[in-house]
Amino acid sequence: ERAGEREGEGERGPFSSMSINSRKVHRVCVVGGGSWGTAVAKLVAANTLRHAEFCPTVTLWLHDEKVKPSRFSEARWLSDLINTEHTNPKYLPGVRLPDTVIAEPDLAKAASQATLVIIAVPHHYLHTAMFTKILSGCAPNCRVCSLVKGLDVVDGRPSLVSDRMRRDLLGLDVAVLMGANIAEEVAASQFSEATLGTNVAEDGPIWQRVFNTENFRVNVVLDATGVELCGALKPIISLGAGFCDGMDCGANTKASIIRIGLEEMMRFSKLFFPRTRTRTFFESCGVAELIVSSYGGRTRLCAEAFVRATRARKTRSWESLEAELLNGQKLPTMERLQEVMECIRVLPPRQVARFPLFSAIYSVAFRGAPPERMLKLPERVAWRRKTQGLQLFGGGPLAWITIFFIAVVMASTVLLLVFLAERRRIASSEQ
Amino acid sequence: ERAGEREGEGERGPFSSMSINSRKVHRVCVVGGGSWGTAVAKLVAANTLRHAEFCPTVTLWLHDEKVKPSRFSEARWLSDLINTEHTNPKYLPGVRLPDTVIAEPDLAKAASQATLVIIAVPHHYLHTAMFTKILSGCAPNCRVCSLVKGLDVVDGRPSLVSDRMRRDLLGLDVAVLMGANIAEEVAASQFSEATLGTNVAEDGPIWQRVFNTENFRVNVVLDATGVELCGALKPIISLGAGFCDGMDCGANTKASIIRIGLEEMMRFSKLFFPRTRTRTFFESCGVAELIVSSYGGRTRLCAEAFVRATRARKTRSWESLEAELLNGQKLPTMERLQEVMECIRVLPPRQVARFPLFSAIYSVAFRGAPPERMLKLPERVAWRRKTQGLQLFGGGPLAWITIFFIAVVMASTVLLLVFLAERRRIASSEQ
Repeated sequence: ERAGEREGEGERGPFSSMSINSRKVHRVCVVGGGSWGTAVAKLVAANTLRHAEFCPTVTLWLHDEKVKPSRFSEARWLSDLINTEHTNPKYLPGVRLPDTVIAEPDLAKAASQATLVIIAVPHHYLHTAMFTKILSGCAPNCRVCSLVKGLDVVDGRPSLVSDRMRRDLLGLDVAVLMGANIAEEVAASQFSEATLGTNVAEDGPIWQRVFNTENFRVNVVLDATGVELCGALKPIISLGAGFCDGMDCGANTKASIIRIGLEEMMRFSKLFFPRTRTRTFFESCGVAELIVSSYGGRTRLCAEAFVRATRARKTRSWESLEAELLNGQKLPTMERLQEVMECIRVLPPRQVARFPLFSAIYSVAFRGAPPERMLKLPERVAWRRKTQGLQLFGGGPLAWITIFFIAVVMASTVLLLVFLAERRRIASSEQ
Repeated sequence: ERAGEREGEGERGPFSSMSINSRKVHRVCVVGGGSWGTAVAKLVAANTLRHAEFCPTVTLWLHDEKVKPSRFSEARWLSDLINTEHTNPKYLPGVRLPDTVIAEPDLAKAASQATLVIIAVPHHYLHTAMFTKILSGCAPNCRVCSLVKGLDVVDGRPSLVSDRMRRDLLGLDVAVLMGANIAEEVAASQFSEATLGTNVAEDGPIWQRVFNTENFRVNVVLDATGVELCGALKPIISLGAGFCDGMDCGANTKASIIRIGLEEMMRFSKLFFPRTRTRTFFESCGVAELIVSSYGGRTRLCAEAFVRATRARKTRSWESLEAELLNGQKLPTMERLQEVMECIRVLPPRQVARFPLFSAIYSVAFRGAPPERMLKLPERVAWRRKTQGLQLFGGGPLAWITIFFIAVVMASTVLLLVFLAERRRIASSEQ
């Protein structure tokens, strides 16, 4: 039945509405029909209708499954529900999707002729076969944007998911979009922001036109690495914020933990990826997302419950908390925290000591340390004598370059004087 | 009665416990016995006992008043209550103060021989006479630390309160301490952080020893201006956060408003005080205090009530909200907002346009604009073409210095070659 249904639909399939029009230079495909992927497809569909250079249809690849749209109705394929009822009752209930969002369970077909592919699948579902299929379908000048939050570890060092994508997609350009984005709020067109990081300057305006709407502000930064690291490291801090809530800490304490966490995120990023920019952490992907997930969010919820159970001497496993509180969803934070700690623990001790909060959160979450351990951070020696030395331009590289520069100018002046003196000597000797 | 009481006490007065000991080089005086001043006096008294270089007694100047310690007891002078009962029932009820905190209602006497004066009075109580009295009492090598949150406006430009202090205190060094600090939580020794800003590098370690405890972490930054501006501009953003709450905005929206606010705070600071450092905004005085006051705090509370009233078509004045919600306390934010807007509105239009959120908050608070105005910010043109040009070191001054440096190196190399060629020519012509 299923196969026939799909064959019959082939004639009026996903691309029938796409006229081959030379002005329509971009076709968008969203890979991943979870809550965030679906919300993004809705968002993008509004822009593809608005701007002339886009083909209006947005294809949405999803892992097809039978879903009951309501309690008493029959189970139907999720892709059919999206294509006929224009809703995704399983992952984004109550939101009407535009007619131009077309679900397609065959990935190669969904990505066919796409020039812009948006990847929104959870980190642990990413695999090489997926990229091979995308690559087989998409247009040769295709650009990719990753919404995947995660971090790979290769030989004890963190490795970006977008770098894996670039490799597996044979060098296609990969941008990243992160930010304070709860799918339900974005789908309901509430005002929010996001940060698009790219390493290819020309791609900034293209992606901005794909995502930016009146209520979804996209800021472009030329620092894809920083943006991706913000998204990857953030859940560790929301775990810490949850521990604070579990201990009934005051507002000051929680804000301090969030701030110290932001600082360690920056330190981690700069240590392993020295080109990360400080300003990126002020963008939506940094400060704003940290606030959202430290005051709401699933990770914070589980962390609070974990600490309350520990303090009541009824230690709970993370698996049981997930099962009880998250309605079957997984907590990606725990894996992330272990990956990050893997990278930190192989560092020399002097470097490990620069991540006291990350280490404390890890000890509380996995080593049975009391949650108060998080508030016993070693006193930060804020006052480094070195700041008393060179204060030119804040003592950074600028100061050293300036000093070196002055030295070179002085040396060349001396050389010039010697040269002139020599000439005069020769001139006088010639006389 | 009152005079006699004070005279009789004179013999065992504030300084009787201070032995003139050559090792005790510092005497601390706290000016201002409100909740924050009292909490700080408690904090400092723990450190003056711990470190050898401090005289253990901390004098606390306050504007004396008759207070009823409990409902049925007789009214007593606040200074007496602090000196005999070791509590401040009016401003910090329920907190026991160390015996070494000694209240003294005569400012010149309180500041007598002080080498470290901490000023913790509200902005609108600061006046020149106060500084004259401090100056008449304090030691000649006195250092001052301001905890005052506020901003003066002089000729349409913002002027720092600490600059006024420096002038009125005849050039004494003034540091500032700001941070995510709710007085009650600090007095209860909950973990929190603060930022000490100083322009005099040598003073950093001294002030750190005055304030830093196991649960109150003081980070020193060499940017007093940035630290002070964080404290002064922050309440405007918490007003915006309160408007969000009054509109029942989602978590994304509120986090976006806080983030945009932080960005405008930085922009304002850099515009009027170009030497402000970006990193200061990551300290406790920046990000952390913004979070605390946007999720709790008096300003947020009144702002939420203001918007709820507006939306129910029952417009309320700020005065009536203050009276109803703040138990007689004043809302310093409103004055601050007007001062800041005064500075912004005299700028050229292109500069004014860089502060859309500040302007929107102002319009909602004072011009009867609908609160939704705050979410109708002009779309930020994140994508500036200039970023596509010079990308060396992020296109900052570093890039230009480097290019200039390379040019000079090349020029001096050419000069050297000419010089050598000249020598060879002469040598060959001499042969």
